[in-house]
Amino acid sequence: MHHFADRVSEAVRYKGTPLCVGLDPRWESLPEEIRRRHGSTSLESVAAAFEEFCSRVIDRVADLVPIVKPQSAFFEACGPAGLVALRNILHRARRRGLLTLLDGKRNDIASTATAYADAALAGVTFAGHRFPVWEADALTVNPYLGRDAVEPFLQSARRCGGGVFVLVRTSNAGAGQFQDLVVTRSGGTEPGRPLFLHVAEAVRAWARENLGSCGLGDVGAVVGATYPAELALLRKELPEVLFLVPGFGAQGGKAEDVMAAFRPDGLGALVNSSRAILFPGDPADPAWEQHVEKATRDAVAALPRVPHHP
Amino acid sequence: MHHFADRVSEAVRYKGTPLCVGLDPRWESLPEEIRRRHGSTSLESVAAAFEEFCSRVIDRVADLVPIVKPQSAFFEACGPAGLVALRNILHRARRRGLLTLLDGKRNDIASTATAYADAALAGVTFAGHRFPVWEADALTVNPYLGRDAVEPFLQSARRCGGGVFVLVRTSNAGAGQFQDLVVTRSGGTEPGRPLFLHVAEAVRAWARENLGSCGLGDVGAVVGATYPAELALLRKELPEVLFLVPGFGAQGGKAEDVMAAFRPDGLGALVNSSRAILFPGDPADPAWEQHVEKATRDAVAALPRVPHHP
Repeated sequence: MHHFADRVSEAVRYKGTPLCVGLDPRWESLPEEIRRRHGSTSLESVAAAFEEFCSRVIDRVADLVPIVKPQSAFFEACGPAGLVALRNILHRARRRGLLTLLDGKRNDIASTATAYADAALAGVTFAGHRFPVWEADALTVNPYLGRDAVEPFLQSARRCGGGVFVLVRTSNAGAGQFQDLVVTRSGGTEPGRPLFLHVAEAVRAWARENLGSCGLGDVGAVVGATYPAELALLRKELPEVLFLVPGFGAQGGKAEDVMAAFRPDGLGALVNSSRAILFPGDPADPAWEQHVEKATRDAVAALPRVPHHP
Repeated sequence: MHHFADRVSEAVRYKGTPLCVGLDPRWESLPEEIRRRHGSTSLESVAAAFEEFCSRVIDRVADLVPIVKPQSAFFEACGPAGLVALRNILHRARRRGLLTLLDGKRNDIASTATAYADAALAGVTFAGHRFPVWEADALTVNPYLGRDAVEPFLQSARRCGGGVFVLVRTSNAGAGQFQDLVVTRSGGTEPGRPLFLHVAEAVRAWARENLGSCGLGDVGAVVGATYPAELALLRKELPEVLFLVPGFGAQGGKAEDVMAAFRPDGLGALVNSSRAILFPGDPADPAWEQHVEKATRDAVAALPRVPHHP
């Protein structure tokens, strides 16, 4: 089975960019033609609008980027119909040759964590039969519950050549409330280190359990572009960990802020942009797909170019 | 609007017990008659089996307990059909007069967190119209991202008289990996305190923003029955916080372990049991509903009785 980090590295080299397009459909920002055609009279119609919008975005960016990241929350907000839309756009992205990262920030313990993990990644098993559910290549997870709770996600990922991205340093302004708390090792005399570095250390250990030939593990770290100093520090401390860097673009992270996320060969990080690519212009403009394509090309141009390997 | 903690306290007094029944359908443990009738040839048939099982459990326990807690992961494992089942059983529980707590452990930032929160609690809004989605009375959330990320959940809960339960001390064996890390206040000379107590302190502050007349806030804390010492400490430190105590029953938490969770008047905590109630006997026994009822009555008898207020 092909290792997740190698699949990512190959896709990044093939497309020549580490850009990940976030699929965060927001009703009030959708192109007017789509809002008008579907209407918002029911959750089903909104879900259909989300599906059409994301499908057309996927078609526009499929040749330009290696990976897309649907945000589960926006689909769940439409109830069961939204989850049908999510399944369909994940399917479309795969068919267009894109890797898929489901942003669900899931977390739980034991067999409950297995249910989330298998749904997202390896497929669920009932009475000995395996059923694919979301079939994503990777899933974001929250580490607060500790290793034994992360373990089922690793196991599911490792059954299917998938990956897991663990929240380490999130991109929001208040991320530091808990993530920056200074932890002292009991009995230790060394100066303390912030909580997110302890989480990072655990992520590194998990990643090193299963390295791809590119030198990166199948457990990545989510590190916000909005914290460039932490990003640089983490790159130094976690040489084998693939980063997912949100917060680039609309959230304020700039291209120079994310440079530190990469290894010297340009690999080692995926940089996500959602709103700046999905909603770059006037929703009334019928040529919105051209603006999506241009915004994608602009983001690609702003990020490091990775030497093309066909 | 009626305050969430008052609604919980009244329901606990009306039923005379703080027992919460967890709805965690597991295919391999379902009664044979249900597995046989629906079969496991598709995710749709498994979802239908989950719905029938949970519906019949709800009918059996509706007069005995104040609240049920469906575990989102098991429904998501069946894809969109599972979410239809989840919606239907939440609806049935409400119709039977039960409070509902959706166990989703959600977390994200800004408008993404709002999407999760509104789907679970107040209802989502598109083009100025509000649509109910899961319509739960409360949702579990993960605190790792900090206050600004928890805020959208509080806002949604406060728009509909709902509640939020924040993970503080989880019930798994490895919970301490991060939750027990000792945190020192910068520049402080006091001895450090474990991370979960810092999270607990934040939860107390959030709860105190909006107290019900029972003296409890609309922000609760998840504290595992498997850590009775921590549970007792937290009860002392968080007098205004409603606890959700998982881990009772199949996970090993005993009745004497959870006694410390309650205030002297018997309020202040909901104690969840899932497997011990759902799957108490032989799956081949056609009288399984009687066993579910007996297991519920046994759990009620083992927990403190709350003086009945009609």
